Amino acid sequence: MPARLRAFANDIFLSMGCGDKHASLAADVLLSADLRGIDSHGVARLKGYVRLWENNRINTRPHLAIVHETPTTATVDGDAGLGLVVAPFAMELAITKAKQYGSGWVAVRNSNHFGIAGYHALMAVRQNMIGFAMTNASPLVSPTFSNERLLGTNPICYAFPAGKYPPVVVDMATSAAANGKLEIAQRLGKQVPEGWIQDAAGRFTTDPHALKSGGSLLPLGSDYGHGSHKGFGLSATVDILSAVLSGANYGPWVPPFVAFLDPPDDPVGLGIGHFVGAMRVDGFRPVDEFKSHLDNWITRFKSASTVSPHQKVIIPGEPEAEAEIERNKNGIPLIGAVVDDLNTLAEKFSLKKL
Amino acid sequence: MPARLRAFANDIFLSMGCGDKHASLAADVLLSADLRGIDSHGVARLKGYVRLWENNRINTRPHLAIVHETPTTATVDGDAGLGLVVAPFAMELAITKAKQYGSGWVAVRNSNHFGIAGYHALMAVRQNMIGFAMTNASPLVSPTFSNERLLGTNPICYAFPAGKYPPVVVDMATSAAANGKLEIAQRLGKQVPEGWIQDAAGRFTTDPHALKSGGSLLPLGSDYGHGSHKGFGLSATVDILSAVLSGANYGPWVPPFVAFLDPPDDPVGLGIGHFVGAMRVDGFRPVDEFKSHLDNWITRFKSASTVSPHQKVIIPGEPEAEAEIERNKNGIPLIGAVVDDLNTLAEKFSLKKL
Repeated sequence: MPARLRAFANDIFLSMGCGDKHASLAADVLLSADLRGIDSHGVARLKGYVRLWENNRINTRPHLAIVHETPTTATVDGDAGLGLVVAPFAMELAITKAKQYGSGWVAVRNSNHFGIAGYHALMAVRQNMIGFAMTNASPLVSPTFSNERLLGTNPICYAFPAGKYPPVVVDMATSAAANGKLEIAQRLGKQVPEGWIQDAAGRFTTDPHALKSGGSLLPLGSDYGHGSHKGFGLSATVDILSAVLSGANYGPWVPPFVAFLDPPDDPVGLGIGHFVGAMRVDGFRPVDEFKSHLDNWITRFKSASTVSPHQKVIIPGEPEAEAEIERNKNGIPLIGAVVDDLNTLAEKFSLKKL
Repeated sequence: MPARLRAFANDIFLSMGCGDKHASLAADVLLSADLRGIDSHGVARLKGYVRLWENNRINTRPHLAIVHETPTTATVDGDAGLGLVVAPFAMELAITKAKQYGSGWVAVRNSNHFGIAGYHALMAVRQNMIGFAMTNASPLVSPTFSNERLLGTNPICYAFPAGKYPPVVVDMATSAAANGKLEIAQRLGKQVPEGWIQDAAGRFTTDPHALKSGGSLLPLGSDYGHGSHKGFGLSATVDILSAVLSGANYGPWVPPFVAFLDPPDDPVGLGIGHFVGAMRVDGFRPVDEFKSHLDNWITRFKSASTVSPHQKVIIPGEPEAEAEIERNKNGIPLIGAVVDDLNTLAEKFSLKKL
């Protein structure tokens, strides 16, 4: 079933006008999310990409251009293309620079949603490099003490190659909860924990629908007493590296990911922004030494004593690596609503339904 | 009074056997913390450095060596020196590389406590670069679901040059609360908020002394439901970049900062580790453009509506920049216990008391 879903996604991107290589790459990024168990960022998003394209907010034939460059840094203009193809282009450039000089760093403007950050960071890991990827996103999160939505969930990813273990992949929204977790609660009609969301007046709420009535997500840390200024600081870092540095829109000017909301009419830059980087492990110490010590690190943390005998310490990236093995073997479970959405797209483009 | 305190710190470092340049630099790093209002990392720590030195765990005449290098990466061995001088050496190297190639990244092993991360990151900012600094630290923090102390408060700092505003400086422990905040509560006999600490059994506690009876600090996010796995992931990232990459000790093998606790007798590396980096802003876009947009970012966030009229959105680094102006003018307030400690040191080294 992964192969069938991949072909389906590929056909949708082709139908949107993407060239062969871009369609295949975009499908690969989406499938990677589905395989790794991050369902909110996989084929479930196809509908959203199509709608943005129908609103002329995604260019499926982008001219990806390096607009500024030093030996180890560059700024890329994504020409309003799918982030799913713009970000890998930027990461390839970072890797090329790292091969020659030890490290490479690329800021990206004029892009769109880039899928899971982990996909891009793992491109570097496969070259025995450390991978970095982050992106800003449409505003849903308030800074500490504010009730205005000024930041996206602005994810950040660090990925490290291990030896006998899967790569360590820290891939996290800088909000207390990612939007995908909220959507799950909305779908199930469940309340969410206090500390994820505030209402329009800035009071904690457990209503997962509060965003629709002017509420906002809270930064990691939830409130000032628990360090939400740190979550805000991380989110600000992502926004500045991704957009202030690249010439993309930042803060409240970031265009919404949904087609029914118009972008602000006073943009401060072009599209949304990403920031990616790659550093050769052997720029610091021999790869084998690094991997053997990272394996030792992982072994030690996995064997840590736990508060309850039913728990274990979860190494970042471990559940996703396990999901990838399991889903490659047994297939990707899709909920009915997503299958319906995908079949509606199939109809639109006269493709075979799933 | 800052000048007097600086001269005092300088004399202590000279008495410990530091050379002139190292003594002056180490004093500058400490004073920077006191001036910026981060009292836990200023001259209050002198006593601790002296005790480690007396236990032969700090080498005041280190030979700082580059042990591995590419055009934009390097590993530095700090020869068991003060982190206060090792980290600036590493950052100078990163800046030199960035001047030539756009960016520079230096991992450091065999070092000690490096003071405030912001000091080192701001060295890059003064060159119109973006500064990165992080360090691992002696284990006090448990990973999500564990009650073992396996990580330090592992701070991370990102610093950006602005135009009309002070630099944006995100300088944060990756635990829910920094150790300094805990020490303040201990001193005042106050309870701490739930979510900062757990007891030895892994239950939330509000007792700031719980660390002494086997308790541990919690990662940023406090519990799994509020994203503590993200705080753990960030802390892991700092540990891996600072130590697994450099050849320092990591996780539970990091030597304690206090002299009365011995380092583990099965080290996996040398000393503690840092990781610093610098990227030229004009490696991505002209400096003036970046600064003008960062000013616009700051202006917008400062003017955000707040939940209460008594609150305001605090830009990362703003309170520290304000403290620096105020304390340079009016002096550095020291509590009695710190003055007593410093005067005990003065006696030990036959120096004039404060």
